[in-house]
Amino acid sequence: MSQRMFASDNSAPASPEVIQAMAEVGSAHRYSYGADELSFQAQQTVADLLGLKPDDAISVLVPNGTGANVLGLSSFLRPWDGVIGSPESHITEDECGALEGLRGVKIYHAPSKNGKLSVDIYDTYLPWATNLHRNNPRAVSLTQTTELGTRYSIEELADFGRRARDSSMILHLDGARIANAAVATNPEDPRAALRAMTRDAGVGIMSLGATKNGGLSCDILVVLPQNLPDWALEGDSAPWSVLKLKIQRSQKQGLSLFSKNRYLAAQVLALYGTDLWVHNAANANTQAARLERGLRDLEAKHLRIRVMYPVQANGVWLQMPGEWVKSLQEEFGFYLWEPEGPGPFKDPVARLMTSWDTEEADVDRLLEGIRKRAQG
Amino acid sequence: MSQRMFASDNSAPASPEVIQAMAEVGSAHRYSYGADELSFQAQQTVADLLGLKPDDAISVLVPNGTGANVLGLSSFLRPWDGVIGSPESHITEDECGALEGLRGVKIYHAPSKNGKLSVDIYDTYLPWATNLHRNNPRAVSLTQTTELGTRYSIEELADFGRRARDSSMILHLDGARIANAAVATNPEDPRAALRAMTRDAGVGIMSLGATKNGGLSCDILVVLPQNLPDWALEGDSAPWSVLKLKIQRSQKQGLSLFSKNRYLAAQVLALYGTDLWVHNAANANTQAARLERGLRDLEAKHLRIRVMYPVQANGVWLQMPGEWVKSLQEEFGFYLWEPEGPGPFKDPVARLMTSWDTEEADVDRLLEGIRKRAQG
Amino acid sequence: MSQRMFASDNSAPASPEVIQAMAEVGSAHRYSYGADELSFQAQQTVADLLGLKPDDAISVLVPNGTGANVLGLSSFLRPWDGVIGSPESHITEDECGALEGLRGVKIYHAPSKNGKLSVDIYDTYLPWATNLHRNNPRAVSLTQTTELGTRYSIEELADFGRRARDSSMILHLDGARIANAAVATNPEDPRAALRAMTRDAGVGIMSLGATKNGGLSCDILVVLPQNLPDWALEGDSAPWSVLKLKIQRSQKQGLSLFSKNRYLAAQVLALYGTDLWVHNAANANTQAARLERGLRDLEAKHLRIRVMYPVQANGVWLQMPGEWVKSLQEEFGFYLWEPEGPGPFKDPVARLMTSWDTEEADVDRLLEGIRKRAQG
Amino acid sequence: MSQRMFASDNSAPASPEVIQAMAEVGSAHRYSYGADELSFQAQQTVADLLGLKPDDAISVLVPNGTGANVLGLSSFLRPWDGVIGSPESHITEDECGALEGLRGVKIYHAPSKNGKLSVDIYDTYLPWATNLHRNNPRAVSLTQTTELGTRYSIEELADFGRRARDSSMILHLDGARIANAAVATNPEDPRAALRAMTRDAGVGIMSLGATKNGGLSCDILVVLPQNLPDWALEGDSAPWSVLKLKIQRSQKQGLSLFSKNRYLAAQVLALYGTDLWVHNAANANTQAARLERGLRDLEAKHLRIRVMYPVQANGVWLQMPGEWVKSLQEEFGFYLWEPEGPGPFKDPVARLMTSWDTEEADVDRLLEGIRKRAQG
Repeated sequence: MSQRMFASDNSAPASPEVIQAMAEVGSAHRYSYGADELSFQAQQTVADLLGLKPDDAISVLVPNGTGANVLGLSSFLRPWDGVIGSPESHITEDECGALEGLRGVKIYHAPSKNGKLSVDIYDTYLPWATNLHRNNPRAVSLTQTTELGTRYSIEELADFGRRARDSSMILHLDGARIANAAVATNPEDPRAALRAMTRDAGVGIMSLGATKNGGLSCDILVVLPQNLPDWALEGDSAPWSVLKLKIQRSQKQGLSLFSKNRYLAAQVLALYGTDLWVHNAANANTQAARLERGLRDLEAKHLRIRVMYPVQANGVWLQMPGEWVKSLQEEFGFYLWEPEGPGPFKDPVARLMTSWDTEEADVDRLLEGIRKRAQG
Repeated sequence: MSQRMFASDNSAPASPEVIQAMAEVGSAHRYSYGADELSFQAQQTVADLLGLKPDDAISVLVPNGTGANVLGLSSFLRPWDGVIGSPESHITEDECGALEGLRGVKIYHAPSKNGKLSVDIYDTYLPWATNLHRNNPRAVSLTQTTELGTRYSIEELADFGRRARDSSMILHLDGARIANAAVATNPEDPRAALRAMTRDAGVGIMSLGATKNGGLSCDILVVLPQNLPDWALEGDSAPWSVLKLKIQRSQKQGLSLFSKNRYLAAQVLALYGTDLWVHNAANANTQAARLERGLRDLEAKHLRIRVMYPVQANGVWLQMPGEWVKSLQEEFGFYLWEPEGPGPFKDPVARLMTSWDTEEADVDRLLEGIRKRAQG
Repeated sequence: MSQRMFASDNSAPASPEVIQAMAEVGSAHRYSYGADELSFQAQQTVADLLGLKPDDAISVLVPNGTGANVLGLSSFLRPWDGVIGSPESHITEDECGALEGLRGVKIYHAPSKNGKLSVDIYDTYLPWATNLHRNNPRAVSLTQTTELGTRYSIEELADFGRRARDSSMILHLDGARIANAAVATNPEDPRAALRAMTRDAGVGIMSLGATKNGGLSCDILVVLPQNLPDWALEGDSAPWSVLKLKIQRSQKQGLSLFSKNRYLAAQVLALYGTDLWVHNAANANTQAARLERGLRDLEAKHLRIRVMYPVQANGVWLQMPGEWVKSLQEEFGFYLWEPEGPGPFKDPVARLMTSWDTEEADVDRLLEGIRKRAQG
Repeated sequence: MSQRMFASDNSAPASPEVIQAMAEVGSAHRYSYGADELSFQAQQTVADLLGLKPDDAISVLVPNGTGANVLGLSSFLRPWDGVIGSPESHITEDECGALEGLRGVKIYHAPSKNGKLSVDIYDTYLPWATNLHRNNPRAVSLTQTTELGTRYSIEELADFGRRARDSSMILHLDGARIANAAVATNPEDPRAALRAMTRDAGVGIMSLGATKNGGLSCDILVVLPQNLPDWALEGDSAPWSVLKLKIQRSQKQGLSLFSKNRYLAAQVLALYGTDLWVHNAANANTQAARLERGLRDLEAKHLRIRVMYPVQANGVWLQMPGEWVKSLQEEFGFYLWEPEGPGPFKDPVARLMTSWDTEEADVDRLLEGIRKRAQG
């Protein structure tokens, strides 16, 4: 198998800068569980990134995106509440039922297109708010970039946020790959794009990915209290430090608080305290675009090759003849997304993810591998 | 403050060997979530450590000891079951209610002495097994070394195991500091001690600590199916791979599965694939013994200094006049265990933990600090 | 409003025989929580009804069908397991997320037709059994009669049971209206139909409805251990009394154990210890058939009246012009099922339920009310 | 066995007036789940009873006291919160871990005397409010009358309420036997006593017992929003109807909402819409007092008879020689509270409960039975 796989952006190693930062934490002792200088700096860095004052972005470092999603939503939603997501959303398809299993919150599946929800869902679900036989729909969860490699525009996100505010609902963003979205949306000022897609769009809770973009063992849960509805706060007069303590308790109980938190903080500082997050995401996006271009060429010539969704970040979904799959997988390393896709041949669909360290040569080798089979 | 604190063994940094191993993971891509060579090796290493064949020790790597305890117990116990622990046990005092909160399992508090339970608890709780108004007492949880720095002997543990087997209960061991216990029990062959205290004693579920003994962000949940009662297995004829998949699901849902699992595996290999775990634990124990000797001297001379429990591993609980606490804490870094201890003066009790990297000079400075105040 | 509504079969009062039986419980004291003679008799009656020996049908009396469903499934499934149901199923649409909220079990929504699942779902979901990122699909839940008033045939149920056995899954039956199904399936021997649809079809867990068929405050959870897969039993050698104690604990913890259980037992004996359940269900079915006949006549003449699903028990789903709804509801009492139904006019769909006490005159009045509007 | 037992006040049948009221519900159809006239009246009756306007007492009818306690507390507390109760409290000893199991809330055990907590517990637990490793102590739960048959005075309750308010905690009252307490506290105006012990004392959540005092299958959860801390409300500007909907969802999800709710309402009206609750409780108290008097006589003469706690309601805890127990139990029907009580002989302790229908002759027969053995 070629060195770099297309299985997932978390098949890549951590960026050298990240490991270096961990090595440089040094030999000093520090109080644990986040009560140390590096941990404070990491919080400040996250707030800066989002254009917020330190107190206006409550962030905690957790082992993975599942933790960031589940702890974020369930620190606010009760077991009789519900969150509306797409059928493909990571929270419902890839977290082994954690939201329901650990904290009892139901996920409503609204129809999606290319992995994206429509803002109409508010109209669909709001009537249920007063039906005591159904969970109270109190949050909408979007994924940016989506589980199908597509993106919401800044305007679309702002629409969701407006509707959330009007209906006293929480807007949640699964940002496992939000770096890729920010860079793709505004390559010149990805930081501005990031702020527009989150703080300004009315996002109240988000996961900010790190592991998939060159991190080692860490994602970030960020809560933006100013974007939360009244009912989600701990009483109107409570300072946000009370809210923070609640989230930390939820994190600790949720098995997601590290004693040596400063090693996670070091990762965050290496990624988001510099432009590493931009460089890493930009490379992944660039390689996916290269891959798409090559595949579109083939698609034009070969009936059973089909790029399934708009390629808007670092993933390409490719339908291909089933008999190619096994040998291609062995050679290049990727996952089948659907064993049986749409269309007359019901050919399977593969997911091809590029990473912070994918090289042009990796993409070209993969294209060549597919081309050979197509021409075979 | 002196460089090395006495707050907790997790105030220490990771051992350099551990960080080195993580850096050497290299640039290759690998399938994530544990499906890689390093992860397999780590499992083998854990089985070897316990003197078991690879299939006979199901192990998964999790972010912290809380995760190892809670996921271990709750993969087997149901919400209407109960686990018997001491009132000081980490599962009830220091995990923010995770066992109850995430998986609904009740903790029964049996009386303890110096942090240790007595084997009589089986007689106390077994009658409740048929009382449908009470949780079914199906597990006993011991901590080795205990939350008060004491140890169970191998014989004591074997007694608990025998009673567990006779009553179809699970024996659970919180082994966050089991390395310290193994080294203290048999300095010449700590590996033999470890096996005697776990595999041979009938332990069915255990956490195997790493973070507190020089690890970075990882503890280990180990299940020994051969020591589990029938009801805990997935049907009598199911192979243990079925059990393993259940534990992995519980881990994934429990927010505790890392995508880049191989970086945790590297930590495990660095610690338990070598004698690093022994060296680290031995140093911590040695320094605690040195501290105890110094304090016993003072105790003999000063009415209000008192070493509270037998010092049998790497912690010393010291009662001292309340007016010393603040300045000592600032200088040496430690936690108060009880703001108001026993005795006529109701003086507070401090917990003084030594670490893998504590040096004689650190201990001597602390002793000198206390001596000065005692003589002041 | 006419005396008898069409809102739900639980809008009807309890049958006089049921209230009479409760009054006859008498003045004696008895040990509570089911340890009394009437409670034992009720268990025996339920076993008899299903053609089983007393020990082979574990039954407990609970306040409502939601309790029977949720406690039944969650006494066996773990939070990382999943149950497959239709999108309309009561467990997902009408229990306020109880299965997820109380016990963490995820519900998978398989596509349905006229409220019925297809046996193909086993093929769809079985591959997920080894995917640790997804809940383990360990049960299929069918409703008989379905939430859309249709029925599974005995053969269809047996197919589900066979597939369940082959794949070590549990077959669960929501039998809130199973009496209506049994009577409709075999009017001459409804008891035989009931046994064929449950015991013989391989149903392992079921709710046996009472409240909707003339009961007062009671439904019944029945577990048939001989139809459960190995993994669901408490070890192969455990007697079923151990299983029963587990279910009772689950019931007690699930807020569903009555102290004065004998008053529920009296209801069960009045309904299922006689033919009252047959008479009640038969009347409801007969009146629904009468209603359907009348509506089919109108349907033939009026473009915007449409009977939506086959009428196979005691409910009729009727699409009608939206402007009729309010006044009809005020006059006859029913619920809207869909505010916007299918078809060019997107007219709403009403659910019209008949009850044990619905009279011909009630049906005729409703038909007349609709006829008037249709001809208006 | 004599007709009336001493096992529990729920061994008694329902009062004839209660059954009569259920029979008189009549044959009309009504919308279910509490949307009917009788259900509205029952709410009004409960509010009246507590001296509150209808909107100021949110009440829902549930199957049992366990439901009332668990749903009340867990509608407000989160899984990382904790409630402080006595070691004997029903919520921890007799509800099969429901509070932890269904909703994840931890119970802290504070020391009690004669079943009563001391107001000092606030000082003990408040420091934990900022410790993220421990559950947030946000409620205190008292039982009136206690599980040992004793009572808090009005002043004591008011003290707890004051401290609760000062520390933003909820005061919860398990009122399964509050009728007995009210009647005992102020026999001339039990209604005034009831109001003083709840509304005026600052109780925010309570269960109001019915089943143990002549009800059939119903207890009442009452929430008094004006006595709740800010954080427990759904935002400062939300009307209490929003709070009510939350509690109803919690009830529905908690398996505790009856479709034919009006039959429970009828029970409530029969008991609390008249003075039946007073008469029933008064009789139970009177008979317990008679029993106590007789036993105190014997206690004076017989070394191994001992009335264990002050008899302040309808229960007597009696220590007696173990060899008497079996035959006495068979003759009179009661539970052993402790198989091994305090004192030199370690004799067991029996709980002897009187009921709404206990007669003097029942008490005298029991006294005679004990006397015979004492003199044997």
